Amino acid sequence: MFDTLISGPAQLFEKHRDMVERAIEAIYSREFYAQYPESPSGKIYGETAAETQMGTFNSQLGAPFTRLKQDFEGWLLAREKSPYTLKELEISYPVLHDVNSIILRAGNALSSWKKTSLEERTGILAESLEQVKSMFYEIAYSTQHTTGQSFVMSFQASGPHANDRALEALALGYEEQKRFPTEVHWEKPMGKFNVVLSKFYKAVPKGISLSIGCSTFPIWNSLPGIYASLVTGNPVIVKPHPTAIYPIALVVSVIQEILVNHNLDPHIIQLACDTPEEPVTMQLCEHPAVKLIDFTGGNSFGNYVESLRGKTTFTEKAGVNSVIIDSCKDLDGMMQNLAFSVSLYSGQMCTCPQNIYIPKTGITANGEHISFEKTAEAFVHAVQTLASNEKMGPGTLGAIQSENTSARVKDIASKGVKILLNSTTVNNPEFPDARTASPLVLEVPVERKDLIEGEYFGPIVFIIPTDSTDHSISLAKNVAIEHGALTCSAYTTHTEIMEKITSEMSEAYTPVSFNLTGPIWVNQSAGFSDFHVSGGNPAGNASFTNPEFVLKRFVWVGIRQNKA
Amino acid sequence: MFDTLISGPAQLFEKHRDMVERAIEAIYSREFYAQYPESPSGKIYGETAAETQMGTFNSQLGAPFTRLKQDFEGWLLAREKSPYTLKELEISYPVLHDVNSIILRAGNALSSWKKTSLEERTGILAESLEQVKSMFYEIAYSTQHTTGQSFVMSFQASGPHANDRALEALALGYEEQKRFPTEVHWEKPMGKFNVVLSKFYKAVPKGISLSIGCSTFPIWNSLPGIYASLVTGNPVIVKPHPTAIYPIALVVSVIQEILVNHNLDPHIIQLACDTPEEPVTMQLCEHPAVKLIDFTGGNSFGNYVESLRGKTTFTEKAGVNSVIIDSCKDLDGMMQNLAFSVSLYSGQMCTCPQNIYIPKTGITANGEHISFEKTAEAFVHAVQTLASNEKMGPGTLGAIQSENTSARVKDIASKGVKILLNSTTVNNPEFPDARTASPLVLEVPVERKDLIEGEYFGPIVFIIPTDSTDHSISLAKNVAIEHGALTCSAYTTHTEIMEKITSEMSEAYTPVSFNLTGPIWVNQSAGFSDFHVSGGNPAGNASFTNPEFVLKRFVWVGIRQNKA
Repeated sequence: MFDTLISGPAQLFEKHRDMVERAIEAIYSREFYAQYPESPSGKIYGETAAETQMGTFNSQLGAPFTRLKQDFEGWLLAREKSPYTLKELEISYPVLHDVNSIILRAGNALSSWKKTSLEERTGILAESLEQVKSMFYEIAYSTQHTTGQSFVMSFQASGPHANDRALEALALGYEEQKRFPTEVHWEKPMGKFNVVLSKFYKAVPKGISLSIGCSTFPIWNSLPGIYASLVTGNPVIVKPHPTAIYPIALVVSVIQEILVNHNLDPHIIQLACDTPEEPVTMQLCEHPAVKLIDFTGGNSFGNYVESLRGKTTFTEKAGVNSVIIDSCKDLDGMMQNLAFSVSLYSGQMCTCPQNIYIPKTGITANGEHISFEKTAEAFVHAVQTLASNEKMGPGTLGAIQSENTSARVKDIASKGVKILLNSTTVNNPEFPDARTASPLVLEVPVERKDLIEGEYFGPIVFIIPTDSTDHSISLAKNVAIEHGALTCSAYTTHTEIMEKITSEMSEAYTPVSFNLTGPIWVNQSAGFSDFHVSGGNPAGNASFTNPEFVLKRFVWVGIRQNKA
Repeated sequence: MFDTLISGPAQLFEKHRDMVERAIEAIYSREFYAQYPESPSGKIYGETAAETQMGTFNSQLGAPFTRLKQDFEGWLLAREKSPYTLKELEISYPVLHDVNSIILRAGNALSSWKKTSLEERTGILAESLEQVKSMFYEIAYSTQHTTGQSFVMSFQASGPHANDRALEALALGYEEQKRFPTEVHWEKPMGKFNVVLSKFYKAVPKGISLSIGCSTFPIWNSLPGIYASLVTGNPVIVKPHPTAIYPIALVVSVIQEILVNHNLDPHIIQLACDTPEEPVTMQLCEHPAVKLIDFTGGNSFGNYVESLRGKTTFTEKAGVNSVIIDSCKDLDGMMQNLAFSVSLYSGQMCTCPQNIYIPKTGITANGEHISFEKTAEAFVHAVQTLASNEKMGPGTLGAIQSENTSARVKDIASKGVKILLNSTTVNNPEFPDARTASPLVLEVPVERKDLIEGEYFGPIVFIIPTDSTDHSISLAKNVAIEHGALTCSAYTTHTEIMEKITSEMSEAYTPVSFNLTGPIWVNQSAGFSDFHVSGGNPAGNASFTNPEFVLKRFVWVGIRQNKA
């Protein structure tokens, strides 16, 4: 066997020290930084990687997933189904039949993980990211055929971007645990003599961590919490969404293999699958040994998670994201940017705009007055042009992950408000059976609170005529405070309006992006630079990755010893 | 008027920059550091300060407290009563009659406070600590005659130690808000061109902060939360315990005066008094505008505070602190140290030991076997000697703050367990009417869970015979996990036992002090060095002052702006 050739965890830290230190620098500078290049093209990730991993992906379909090292009592045939082919993936995953068995193993794993030092944990986790890199294409295919994201988006979001976000959490978790000394000499002058103590500071993990995944971003949304919990010494139970297991199972398999190779318990990270018919999530959540819960998903379950006593929770729920249009330099540039934002992955991003506020009196574009109607028209035109563009459309819109989302689009069209643009299917030559829907654009009066105060997940956009830009700001702010928001996109050429929007939306703890045009969209959140979700409004109580996100996973405990 | 002579808030920051920076250094080094010398003797705090301020204290008794700058609609005669003289202080405080009026003013104050920069806030708050210094003696007298602490303890705990803890919170709050840049240039290479954004990071305060004080440490326990909230931009409503208002009112008056002198709203900090008959605390807690709550007090109200939805809470509740005796070098030194710990302020410190675990088979002292009975006897002897020492006793034990505590001592003596030492009154020549009680020492079998698993606040000590040191550790650990603990004091000469205690008590998130003898006690928690309360067990969810304590009071919000 080659086990003896594998370097120990301490060596792994030395191997990756530079990467971790550069990441910490990037977190503090918040300038552009990416450890993992985002492009699937070129040969960055290997000469034949795309092709080889396509083969692996195809041979995984219809087969049991045998790459995990965890104990199991049987196989669960998962309910994963490709939104592109509408065929079941028919992959089975190893399972234990009882939540207590999972918890027991996680509890034992805590003892194993505790024996490692912070440097060893950091080394192991950094190594795992480097190894995950070698399966970015398989991760992309598996993401595409569970979430409905386009291939490029699947590659970027689940591959390099997720790895960067995981590295960010890992590096900040390492940094926070290094901020205070391990041991100090404390000497207090008492006049004629000194009192002398040795003091030791221990970062003690909180306990078993549960990561509850979502169906649309099974890796990107889960990796930060998983790496944050692991680097702070907590074993993690990964409970993926029943329709999107395969992508995260790949990451878990990589970490487990490295653990086993270093004689550590593979159950330091466990995959715990279930089906919609026999869910285990609430049992896991409510188990007293589970102390940390990371959750991405809907408001109802998210609110339940937040309400659990004795748990530290990190949630990302739904929000109602806004666009405030006041004025712009370049009408076409603005509309193309917005059209792309609402079309990207068919509005299934938590950061996607929903409510577009435009004054009834119109806007100013490049010094020219544009009426409300013309502004709305320009937006509709841009959306339509993108969706019907044979080259750009299918790759931008991707497919619809869930039938519920398709149904929601149909349902909302019948709510009695003015339809500015109907949702249609999007022809995808590569996947003729793909479940698709172009954005539905509705003109919604401010009186329709049932619509503008709810999150309508999917390709659904509301154009809302307002009395003025001040009115737009006030609506966007109040909806964010009451119902949450992850993003606000604003267009204005006036400094004082920019300041007002900044000040008002800050009070709703909602980040604002001003005047985006070109290849940068409000949906995007950059690792090492943008805080994803502020944690300050109902859209979620946590943020990728602020210091709280890692600090709340461990407790500082001091030990003092008399040296007299 | 001299207003024009007062420097602006920016100058105040420059004036105190060194103090803040030294404090930050101390927080990171965790070595001994004190900004404010702890001794009331000498002339450190002014040649005639003690005498002058005794005069101020005496003239305040029976009079309205007119030093606040806040709006008021009437005067509330407070229920403060000296545990030393058993006389009411008869001080009235200005009050508003309606909780909404208090909240309204706090809301307006938020806008005023928001106009200041982090440096200005830090400067104002540092200045307030420097000015509070000039009333340390009045603070001491007022603390003594509300809490029952001895004069020296009152001076130290409410004066220099509290100021050091406040400075620690202030400095760490400043530091955390400076960790990320205010503005960055973000430039992402896209191949043929770059995407360029300006990014701004704002630390946005969470909202109105409520500080709920306790009767025994009205300043020490409240100041860190107050300064942490203020430096992060949140206005604070100070709701003191109805029996201990005077000390914290002094601090509030100092801050308000500085605010007014800088044309800021004095309601940035408000005193909100009530009486036990007409309490306002729950109304304040449940008001939707109150976002942050700092609480020190009993479990029942503390659990209520923690259960409130939509609030960020920082609690210090009760714990069952343990002593594990395995072996020692110096039996007398150990027992004198423990006797002092349980006697100091008559066991009314949250850090005071309650459960002393001793193996039935006895311990080893300086290589010699000492039976359980002899060990218990040595402890009882040390307690008795201290309590009956005319010089040391009254100053160490102080007085009993509440009649409930006196009643508890009587009640517990009748619980059917063996009394090793009866509680008696402590003769205090200076205050012959003082409400006093020396420590009651009981031998409690492990079966009496009703006793060993509860916190019996006051001069009550349980000696618990165990099967072995391992058994002692296991009991101390489990009680801490289930019922909370702030401290554990342990005595052992064996390295492996020390390691086991460290490891086991760490799992209960309980700090341990080993082998304390001489003038250093487990009760003590040093600013800039010891984390007071770990936040990891039921004794409380917050810690003086770890990064979470300040971070949870504000939200990072990012603003992006296209530079294309």
